[in-house]
Amino acid sequence: LVHKVTVGVLGASGYAGRELCLLAGRHPHMELAFASANAQRGETFRAGKNALEFISADEAPLGDVDLVFCALPHGASREWVLRARDAGAKVVDLSSDFRPGHTGSEGVPYGLTELRRSDVTGADLVANPGCYPTAILLALEPLVRAGLIEQGSTIAASAASGVTGAGYSPRPELLFGEVAEDFRAYSVGNDHRHLAEMSAVLQDAGGNADIVFTPHLLPVARGILATIVTRVSSLPKNPLEIWLDAYDGEACVEITDSTPTLKEVVRRNVVRISVARATNTTVPTVIITSAIDNLTKGAAGQAIQNANLMFGLPETAGLPL
Amino acid sequence: LVHKVTVGVLGASGYAGRELCLLAGRHPHMELAFASANAQRGETFRAGKNALEFISADEAPLGDVDLVFCALPHGASREWVLRARDAGAKVVDLSSDFRPGHTGSEGVPYGLTELRRSDVTGADLVANPGCYPTAILLALEPLVRAGLIEQGSTIAASAASGVTGAGYSPRPELLFGEVAEDFRAYSVGNDHRHLAEMSAVLQDAGGNADIVFTPHLLPVARGILATIVTRVSSLPKNPLEIWLDAYDGEACVEITDSTPTLKEVVRRNVVRISVARATNTTVPTVIITSAIDNLTKGAAGQAIQNANLMFGLPETAGLPL
Amino acid sequence: LVHKVTVGVLGASGYAGRELCLLAGRHPHMELAFASANAQRGETFRAGKNALEFISADEAPLGDVDLVFCALPHGASREWVLRARDAGAKVVDLSSDFRPGHTGSEGVPYGLTELRRSDVTGADLVANPGCYPTAILLALEPLVRAGLIEQGSTIAASAASGVTGAGYSPRPELLFGEVAEDFRAYSVGNDHRHLAEMSAVLQDAGGNADIVFTPHLLPVARGILATIVTRVSSLPKNPLEIWLDAYDGEACVEITDSTPTLKEVVRRNVVRISVARATNTTVPTVIITSAIDNLTKGAAGQAIQNANLMFGLPETAGLPL
Amino acid sequence: LVHKVTVGVLGASGYAGRELCLLAGRHPHMELAFASANAQRGETFRAGKNALEFISADEAPLGDVDLVFCALPHGASREWVLRARDAGAKVVDLSSDFRPGHTGSEGVPYGLTELRRSDVTGADLVANPGCYPTAILLALEPLVRAGLIEQGSTIAASAASGVTGAGYSPRPELLFGEVAEDFRAYSVGNDHRHLAEMSAVLQDAGGNADIVFTPHLLPVARGILATIVTRVSSLPKNPLEIWLDAYDGEACVEITDSTPTLKEVVRRNVVRISVARATNTTVPTVIITSAIDNLTKGAAGQAIQNANLMFGLPETAGLPL
Repeated sequence: LVHKVTVGVLGASGYAGRELCLLAGRHPHMELAFASANAQRGETFRAGKNALEFISADEAPLGDVDLVFCALPHGASREWVLRARDAGAKVVDLSSDFRPGHTGSEGVPYGLTELRRSDVTGADLVANPGCYPTAILLALEPLVRAGLIEQGSTIAASAASGVTGAGYSPRPELLFGEVAEDFRAYSVGNDHRHLAEMSAVLQDAGGNADIVFTPHLLPVARGILATIVTRVSSLPKNPLEIWLDAYDGEACVEITDSTPTLKEVVRRNVVRISVARATNTTVPTVIITSAIDNLTKGAAGQAIQNANLMFGLPETAGLPL
Repeated sequence: LVHKVTVGVLGASGYAGRELCLLAGRHPHMELAFASANAQRGETFRAGKNALEFISADEAPLGDVDLVFCALPHGASREWVLRARDAGAKVVDLSSDFRPGHTGSEGVPYGLTELRRSDVTGADLVANPGCYPTAILLALEPLVRAGLIEQGSTIAASAASGVTGAGYSPRPELLFGEVAEDFRAYSVGNDHRHLAEMSAVLQDAGGNADIVFTPHLLPVARGILATIVTRVSSLPKNPLEIWLDAYDGEACVEITDSTPTLKEVVRRNVVRISVARATNTTVPTVIITSAIDNLTKGAAGQAIQNANLMFGLPETAGLPL
Repeated sequence: LVHKVTVGVLGASGYAGRELCLLAGRHPHMELAFASANAQRGETFRAGKNALEFISADEAPLGDVDLVFCALPHGASREWVLRARDAGAKVVDLSSDFRPGHTGSEGVPYGLTELRRSDVTGADLVANPGCYPTAILLALEPLVRAGLIEQGSTIAASAASGVTGAGYSPRPELLFGEVAEDFRAYSVGNDHRHLAEMSAVLQDAGGNADIVFTPHLLPVARGILATIVTRVSSLPKNPLEIWLDAYDGEACVEITDSTPTLKEVVRRNVVRISVARATNTTVPTVIITSAIDNLTKGAAGQAIQNANLMFGLPETAGLPL
Repeated sequence: LVHKVTVGVLGASGYAGRELCLLAGRHPHMELAFASANAQRGETFRAGKNALEFISADEAPLGDVDLVFCALPHGASREWVLRARDAGAKVVDLSSDFRPGHTGSEGVPYGLTELRRSDVTGADLVANPGCYPTAILLALEPLVRAGLIEQGSTIAASAASGVTGAGYSPRPELLFGEVAEDFRAYSVGNDHRHLAEMSAVLQDAGGNADIVFTPHLLPVARGILATIVTRVSSLPKNPLEIWLDAYDGEACVEITDSTPTLKEVVRRNVVRISVARATNTTVPTVIITSAIDNLTKGAAGQAIQNANLMFGLPETAGLPL
């Protein structure tokens, strides 16, 4: 009886786009109206039990839907976000075009839901965080806000992602024959395109430390695990308390004694975080580990979570927990 | 015509033991005389084209061979090393029992071959390094010796290993159904049993920094990749020069511009090392990545390399490069 | 408001048992009351968002639940099935103890749901089919019933299963280091323990052909693909029609033009079947391929589907489609 | 002192081409002179410890080498084979252009080495078999030659290959994210392009049965396992004797009691074959399983084996066994 939120997905043939179609198609309060994929125009695709036909972005009836998820490539997204907004649709943008650290992001709520809930609620446009920033910022920001990171120190953030994070693009180095039984770091030298987003957010939270971020490519389909080493000025007896306090009552955050693993989070819209005090050091140091599914909490799931808040729906409606 | 070095392997049913049998069996100057595996006593196993029958350690004719590779578990190894020495055999011990940082290791050469060649040459007993220490120390020690690591800083050493590093032991968490599509950190909190070995070696080389080591379990069979972040006091214009100088002429070390990957080193007795200066930091920082095969350069291959030096054979004889 | 069906799971620590707990825990009309696992007694386990504590089978309050899923090993199951029945609970038995081709199976409905629906509806005890028989019988039985298989010919049924089919048992040959990058046939010689079940069912359906079944172990966690080659006496112009007719209106069966893949069925309670006429043969021959998730349609999912019919619930309630 | 056979590789950037460069580069009696790859012209590649620069095929000094391995795509190969022959080089062609069942293959020796040794020895041009035909024909031909297959029956040959068999081509369906955790049949309907090759060879050996061949794509990098079901007119008491006799003294064939696995053959130039009599059938039936490495015995290794015979070198020189 209640009106369902009508939804369109731009850029629906990629991994995040397909996941959005799947989640929106199963959402009790959403109805998937269109999905665009220029190169696959006319092809039928299956999202759960439903089948839909890809249209081109130009054909998308942006004015006929309540909500557009924009999963177009970085750089190409901005134009379509503005078109959809002009046509009257609310937009969750999954590209980096409107994220912190990028020009033109001022005033656009950053959809790191648990830490920006009031900005997102009721908003018309939300910039959905990157997958690595989601894993790392949800793990780090409570410590930064508590002012406990040693001033001027170096935060070493190493993280590894499944290959769906690299997108559905037929590059030779992403073939099964190349990725299986391999593991590699990339963007070594602290120049990954997600760095600006993380730095801007941490600085905004009062951070005053170098962050050195090194991503790796894992031979798995889905999941991100981040391992973060940082010196601290002091710590409560049980360091976990900082995170338990920061995320008290959160449905999509799990603070655990045991180290999180990809298996525990894959296909779920949650982040799992654990913290250990380093033994055998002269300076107090913590190791924070955090795990997400890069396509769920790291992309399509968090986008749905933000959309729920934008439309006054229950925050976890339609989300696998 | 030349006398071949006769070889026995104690603990031959594990992954490192099997690799030792394979490499010794193919070695142009070695002859595999026995392989012990108490639980598999009487079973035939294949090492390349050859078949051998496992005997129990008690049956091993320690006095009839020139060389014993001891691949028994930590703690259990010491007794058998001493027995083999008493029987007149030279020994390469692959356990941690005689490694730096362990009681009773004084005077025993540490077989990190490239950095301890003069100690190993002609020795009667050598402690073969752990797999993680091999990857991390070969990467770090040149920088430590050059005195370039910031005094009192924290070295964040994150590393990931294939499952053969966990041994051929039927634990539920090592089943294919558990490891595939998973990734996890373990020994989080800087308390891995390889830490003492690394700390002792770095301190001996003049190091004065905390090392925080976090290992991870990869869904691959073989290989270790280490990613090391550390602040430096200063650096030459091309940081690679430090490593190029330290390893000039080394057959088993490859210093590269591109980031090393597991694929490049698996089934080869080499370490590949690359170094990048971190951009976007206020303090000079480097990221060192290094890759080895945990069973070759990280265990059986390096053991053969050491044995070659102990017997005056060409250092790389019998080794896959 | 409606009374929920209270459910207990015996043998809940294996892969099928854990899947049953997960599905029953999420089922809109079921409530998970207990889960037994003798060796893990007292341990807490997570099934989705819920946590439960394993009890021993002896402690299980069989008389307090409406339904018991028995996922105990073959041979051990019979006794517990009878105990649960005596205590008044309905039972779905996932072992082979009451399946066709086994002594004592007379009169027990065989839960190959789509083909035995009337037997299952309202029943008190159902023998849930094996995973391989589910994939193969759903593919073959329509052809047998139509009387189209060449009299006295040989049906070659080759199938491959993910490792969860081998159970959560720490055997060395199931370690990641052994299974990854491997593939093997097993029970070669037509003596797999599922053969009797398949032969009995096919004979019952009027079959008069040898079936030669060869299972294989795949380096994947979940899924079974069966490839069945058989001579036929004749065929309709479009062979798919036989299956389209047999499964008209079935929610859990998908007849497709394209060859089914594991990806399309994993974590779904469906079977996908395709059929191709062989070219380049002198005798009319078809190749039938069918795919299921061995833990869902091949075990826990089909068990839920049967339970739904036993209790008059909607057949697909609580099932991922 | 002995003249080395100088070797060129056309089409060196694919998986088979790279393997050829690796094996030729390590061969004690061969010297790799050039490697062509039009799209990678000018790029340096590593084959073991050696580095070489790709040239275009047009630049290849065909007249300056003793031997050309042609690993170009089917259809494109014929022209270059003829050019190389005209320039005076002997040629092993790895494409299907000169294989049995293809027009223009008359008089060209078929390099299924063990079964065509006299044709290959000293030849100037050899058509190297396909990977699937190598696995299936080496398994089947002894039975066909013995005249034991039931006249007019159907041979069901199911086989599964690692993804390197599909080539180093960046197609979306070969991405890690698509292949991992999947398994599928392809060319279902007995229309794979290797069928003509197999049928022609079996007919030539006296076969009179339909062969129905169904290939599958495995989530592994290397290896082929074939599972072949066929009715037989009669069998010796120990069926293995047929194969033991046929392959007596062969260095690259292993007849085994136990079912062969990919692990046992990967990176080795061998085929492993096992045979089991089917129980529970009314008609005598056997199941033959055979395993090879698709890039070694199934392509580059067998090409080297043939080249050794063409030049009077020891048949297994340079081959990993």
